[in-house]
Amino acid sequence: MLSVIKELSKKTESKIVLVVLDGVGGLPLAFNGETELATAHTPNLDKLALESQLGQLELVGAGITPGSGPGHLSLFGYDPIQYTVGRGALSAVGIGVKLSAGDVAVRGNFATLDAQRNIVDRRAGRPSDEKNVEIVALLKANIPTLEGIPVEIYTESEHRFVVVFRAQGAALGANLSDVDPQEVGVPPLEATAHDSPSQKTAGLVNAFVMRAEEILKSETQVNGVLFRGYSDVPHFPSFDDAYKLRAACIASYPMYKGLASLVGMDVLEVEGHEDALEGKVAALREHWAEYDFFFFHIKKTDSTGEDGNFLEKAHKVELFDEILPAILELGPQVLCITGDHSTPSKLMTHSWHPVPVLIRSDYGRKDATSRFTEEEAQKGSLGLRKGTDLMPLLMANALKLQKYGA
Amino acid sequence: MLSVIKELSKKTESKIVLVVLDGVGGLPLAFNGETELATAHTPNLDKLALESQLGQLELVGAGITPGSGPGHLSLFGYDPIQYTVGRGALSAVGIGVKLSAGDVAVRGNFATLDAQRNIVDRRAGRPSDEKNVEIVALLKANIPTLEGIPVEIYTESEHRFVVVFRAQGAALGANLSDVDPQEVGVPPLEATAHDSPSQKTAGLVNAFVMRAEEILKSETQVNGVLFRGYSDVPHFPSFDDAYKLRAACIASYPMYKGLASLVGMDVLEVEGHEDALEGKVAALREHWAEYDFFFFHIKKTDSTGEDGNFLEKAHKVELFDEILPAILELGPQVLCITGDHSTPSKLMTHSWHPVPVLIRSDYGRKDATSRFTEEEAQKGSLGLRKGTDLMPLLMANALKLQKYGA
Repeated sequence: MLSVIKELSKKTESKIVLVVLDGVGGLPLAFNGETELATAHTPNLDKLALESQLGQLELVGAGITPGSGPGHLSLFGYDPIQYTVGRGALSAVGIGVKLSAGDVAVRGNFATLDAQRNIVDRRAGRPSDEKNVEIVALLKANIPTLEGIPVEIYTESEHRFVVVFRAQGAALGANLSDVDPQEVGVPPLEATAHDSPSQKTAGLVNAFVMRAEEILKSETQVNGVLFRGYSDVPHFPSFDDAYKLRAACIASYPMYKGLASLVGMDVLEVEGHEDALEGKVAALREHWAEYDFFFFHIKKTDSTGEDGNFLEKAHKVELFDEILPAILELGPQVLCITGDHSTPSKLMTHSWHPVPVLIRSDYGRKDATSRFTEEEAQKGSLGLRKGTDLMPLLMANALKLQKYGA
Repeated sequence: MLSVIKELSKKTESKIVLVVLDGVGGLPLAFNGETELATAHTPNLDKLALESQLGQLELVGAGITPGSGPGHLSLFGYDPIQYTVGRGALSAVGIGVKLSAGDVAVRGNFATLDAQRNIVDRRAGRPSDEKNVEIVALLKANIPTLEGIPVEIYTESEHRFVVVFRAQGAALGANLSDVDPQEVGVPPLEATAHDSPSQKTAGLVNAFVMRAEEILKSETQVNGVLFRGYSDVPHFPSFDDAYKLRAACIASYPMYKGLASLVGMDVLEVEGHEDALEGKVAALREHWAEYDFFFFHIKKTDSTGEDGNFLEKAHKVELFDEILPAILELGPQVLCITGDHSTPSKLMTHSWHPVPVLIRSDYGRKDATSRFTEEEAQKGSLGLRKGTDLMPLLMANALKLQKYGA
């Protein structure tokens, strides 16, 4: 369908704003029988809902709980079953590392090995982030390159780290076997290449494993490394290519900026730290003329849900409600508000429940919904849809799609 | 899914009538806050809605505005992404012209050009059919062949005509760019071939455009031609093959007759001109015993929408309402009323909005809908579905589908 959209899309002056309230969908709690969204006091959102179309999106599939990557890819119109981002690339992108064509990113775990190189603990006793940083510094100092290839090493968290091998000339392959045997009592496996461009990578991976063990031999717990999940740069049709949109990302967290840049959005500077709502609105205002599409990401609706903090999650929705008039004032032809997945406080984690979606444009049908809540969204005129339906709907409402066939 | 249906379909005595109110879906206008359908006074349709199932169809996909071809193919059960047919082939078949392998059919519009060859009116002021016949005769007399290729020119209606280039030896390609720029104030475009078999065709098309302008230079309104939609001969599983249905088409406009004949329907004679509602009912009555399936097409709900004439579109629905009892009197086991796409008067063109669908049979579930309107259809028991779901639903309600699996 993306290739059909690509054929039909056309450049126009109209502007689309896609607000993603991360993890916005919730579940009712017993204490008031309502969800976070229904509990929040949101006069601006309520008014908007009255003049908008509502519905629900299922980002990956029925019953499937989306990770942030697949959730956003689906919102951006890329079928998350077809378009996957390898774990290494996702980790790299998640910590703000830019990958170029030919590079390979690898997800690593620190492990504990015994004197015979057998694995005792695949997570090295879950070291602190500080210990991770210390070990990564030691490795960085000692492994700046391998076989003439620049090597970058990054802390992720606890036992998790990321290695990026930067291609020099020929592209590195990412089709090789794991070092992590996923069991204890055996030594790390030797990586073997499944195709010829990955032979060089296998050599690098195996050399890294041996060098790291040598460097870490005086450590008692963090004295080995395991690799699992190699990835080259994923190839997506860009937003410009698929939709003919000049698209900008307004987000605070590296992961979302990374995802946006993977699909070819420009990542705008946002003043302020954490969710920086005012800074985001300022960025939107400042760059309004330059772009046709804005991905406007708000994180804290998700993190408060993951903390199980129902009232705080509701409050984060209220904070968004306060900046909503400033977004509307800019006069986007199409405004959409939705989430990349649900994160009910009740579950304290992502969930499979569809997310509510709201679309405001001049070309909506009658829709009796009066609030942006899960319950109202179920009655909405947009119905229950796949996440990948969203971009075509936004494009259509912005009058940016030509007729299909005569 | 079509191949599954083919396995399951069986011949029975029951009869299905599929009424297509072309472009029937609308949008509310500010003056009364209602759509054309909701504004129309339709006592018979209202009564029917009470005892029917309602729902909505999305003919091609979310956000996709269907052309008439893809819209109808979807209603007939053919996935319009997989089964494509060019407008030229549709038009040619619609006026009874048989195409052979290698021929190319092209849809043309008469246009008005100014002295600088810039387009003033892409429809040449919508000339009468009589004027069209006169101009076509002039062109036929002067362009019997081009570059050794036989050229056939046919009147379609008003500003519409069809050109068929008959292959001599090597097949002509149909993969070339439009002459119609779809805007005024600019000259006709030069057709360019997208592949090598289409190079000959591009030459013919461009030569035709220049010859026609020369021949028509003394005309004030009809003095240019625009081409859009080139097609070679498409291949479809027939209605008889897929559904075991003896199917008949009752339509006035060539395009719809052409589509029906492409899928193997017999095209019945309809007395009267334009939408000829009484003539259509007469044809239905006369041929009732001979067929299992009737495609009953009404055009004016679309053309009035394209003209932006809200009240007239509502009136065309009322005219259909008046003949509805005569259709019901024949006692079809299954009666379906829907559209091939929406044409809101507000947009004055086809749109992406789902179309309402109504199915009356003895085997419907409870359904609280009380009118055939977009708003009621949103609440209907059939839900929001792909257009290609319709034929299996009609076949099932007519008890013409066997069980799948043991």
